Amino acid sequence: MTGFEVKCTDRASAARRGLLRTTHGDVQTPAFMPVGTAGAVKGVTPEQLRNLGAEIILANTYHLMLRPGVDPIERLGGLHKLMGWDGPILTDSGGYQVFSLSSLTKIDDDGIEFASHVDGAKVYLDAEEATRIQNRFGCDIAMCLDLCPPFGCEQSELAEAVNRTIRWAKRCKDTHHNANQMLFGITQGGIDLEMRQRCAKELVALDFDGYAIGGLAIGEGHKNMVKTVRHTAPLLPQDKPRYLMGVGMPADIIAAVLAGVDMFDCVLPTRNARNAYAFTMAGPLRMRNNEHICNAQPIEKDCDCYACKHFSRAAIRHFFNVREMLGPILTTIHNLRFYQRLMSEIRRHIEQSTLAEMFHHQHWKAQS
Amino acid sequence: MTGFEVKCTDRASAARRGLLRTTHGDVQTPAFMPVGTAGAVKGVTPEQLRNLGAEIILANTYHLMLRPGVDPIERLGGLHKLMGWDGPILTDSGGYQVFSLSSLTKIDDDGIEFASHVDGAKVYLDAEEATRIQNRFGCDIAMCLDLCPPFGCEQSELAEAVNRTIRWAKRCKDTHHNANQMLFGITQGGIDLEMRQRCAKELVALDFDGYAIGGLAIGEGHKNMVKTVRHTAPLLPQDKPRYLMGVGMPADIIAAVLAGVDMFDCVLPTRNARNAYAFTMAGPLRMRNNEHICNAQPIEKDCDCYACKHFSRAAIRHFFNVREMLGPILTTIHNLRFYQRLMSEIRRHIEQSTLAEMFHHQHWKAQS
Repeated sequence: MTGFEVKCTDRASAARRGLLRTTHGDVQTPAFMPVGTAGAVKGVTPEQLRNLGAEIILANTYHLMLRPGVDPIERLGGLHKLMGWDGPILTDSGGYQVFSLSSLTKIDDDGIEFASHVDGAKVYLDAEEATRIQNRFGCDIAMCLDLCPPFGCEQSELAEAVNRTIRWAKRCKDTHHNANQMLFGITQGGIDLEMRQRCAKELVALDFDGYAIGGLAIGEGHKNMVKTVRHTAPLLPQDKPRYLMGVGMPADIIAAVLAGVDMFDCVLPTRNARNAYAFTMAGPLRMRNNEHICNAQPIEKDCDCYACKHFSRAAIRHFFNVREMLGPILTTIHNLRFYQRLMSEIRRHIEQSTLAEMFHHQHWKAQS
Repeated sequence: MTGFEVKCTDRASAARRGLLRTTHGDVQTPAFMPVGTAGAVKGVTPEQLRNLGAEIILANTYHLMLRPGVDPIERLGGLHKLMGWDGPILTDSGGYQVFSLSSLTKIDDDGIEFASHVDGAKVYLDAEEATRIQNRFGCDIAMCLDLCPPFGCEQSELAEAVNRTIRWAKRCKDTHHNANQMLFGITQGGIDLEMRQRCAKELVALDFDGYAIGGLAIGEGHKNMVKTVRHTAPLLPQDKPRYLMGVGMPADIIAAVLAGVDMFDCVLPTRNARNAYAFTMAGPLRMRNNEHICNAQPIEKDCDCYACKHFSRAAIRHFFNVREMLGPILTTIHNLRFYQRLMSEIRRHIEQSTLAEMFHHQHWKAQS
């Protein structure tokens, strides 16, 4: 039985400690989902991912529908088979990538026609097709097709995006018939609180299994993001999971959890790792830096990840310096574990109602 | 106590089933050593390497002395610390890479002056320095500095290389004082059987802990290689390990084992994996090939590696197609496991005196 349950709340904030039940297993929330864009979390195997504490991962419908394609994935037995991951998977709807990656996008009330960023082929996506594709993928959580207008666009463009997002959400809901798969609605509206309110109200009336806050982390900055999340989260049902898409740095995540958000995804731990940027509770380390050349300490002394238990900063700096894959691999392992440790700390602090305290601790400022 | 012991021999060939004891653990022979050029076996962690059955790995003195340098490695506590590997390590002496990678090499009876391939800096290497460096690395098996002339060179150049290799071997032996580290001599002489004989005789008189056959797999072809190995191996002491450097394809390894060789190293399983070439007992697979697009079978049905247990050919093809690191990672895991399975099969066949039979089995021809 899929579902969501709030197990306890922080007495000092809107933060919630919950449990998300999916067809492929349970997820403790607040949860961070590593991003497996094209069916793989870059630099690690699913086995390593599981050992790092990840309970759910995200994959991108846009990338997967282009390559390898929906048919091959379905014929293999679904996305779990392709990815070699038997835990929960959330797929986005493809709407965001259509705008950020493809050119020649034509959009109307019906749907989106775009040119594949791979080979320029014309592809059509609408609410019904986005829902059917995710159904054929067999993912645990499907997202409604939404429209994410660029930050700072005209009010009229923002309003049209919200209207279409609402209408498409209804069509997604009508198309969706899969008891093994949850369907989440996505609120849009940029940093316009009134539009967020209208969008949330309309989506809540449609009764989704969960609700995402989309269209943030696209240039509006930490303060605007937090303000919008604080406004939007309370408009969403208490008994359904809330997912802030594409966020973010540790300080962003903590602020959003304090506002009542339960789920996050972001490429930062993996992408930054490949650029030799290691997260630590005391602030970031640049692993290519010469200062590490003879440093026998691990990336982070108290970290229990494989990289920190077996490798020095000197070794990891060396691997980046000579372009050995082991540099990105070890730093990815560490960063993903850092994010899971962060979420685990957050969950513990919610249970103890001490999360606001954690947020104000000086060291988080270094990561924001 | 370091040492080597032949546990049994093949009744139908010169093949030996042995045990190599090193300071960091035992190695069942015949053994294949994955190559960790610059301190890392490309694409896998030492933990994965151990799980694949690797018992000893090779690292390159030339690469490591340039980057990160001997001082940083020593200050970290040695090469095992840098690499995050607590099993046996063999380092080559640097002689081979000096010739294959660096320019402006000046060589005389004393040693080699070369320009670093990284930054052009002048570096000097002689028998004493090569031995001291490997001692400071703390590896389990050090190799004498040798000279590897190109295939097809003049007889006079070959003879001079053999003479210097012998003289340098004596200087290495005189410099080496480390009971925890074995020192191997390297025979040279190209495919000239008389020179091989002279070189082997002189080296055996110096009494090394083991003997390598160097200067092969550099363009002479399978037949010449096997002929030279068959001639040279019996000239080396029965009770010492024999190591054929840089070899090779499965059929090369089996032929050399039949001639009495105990140890091998080669970049083929790792390098080929990164080029989407997967080894199987039935011949190679090109993982980028479109024929795999909907193939739910693993790379190799009977393989027990992580890649074969969890991923289809379709998935691995897809990862290569979209340039996900997981493609090279999974294929590297498979290929390294393939080589370890091969060695395990070889050891079993020696114990049963059925190795020659295995060699003549049709499927090996596809791999030669």
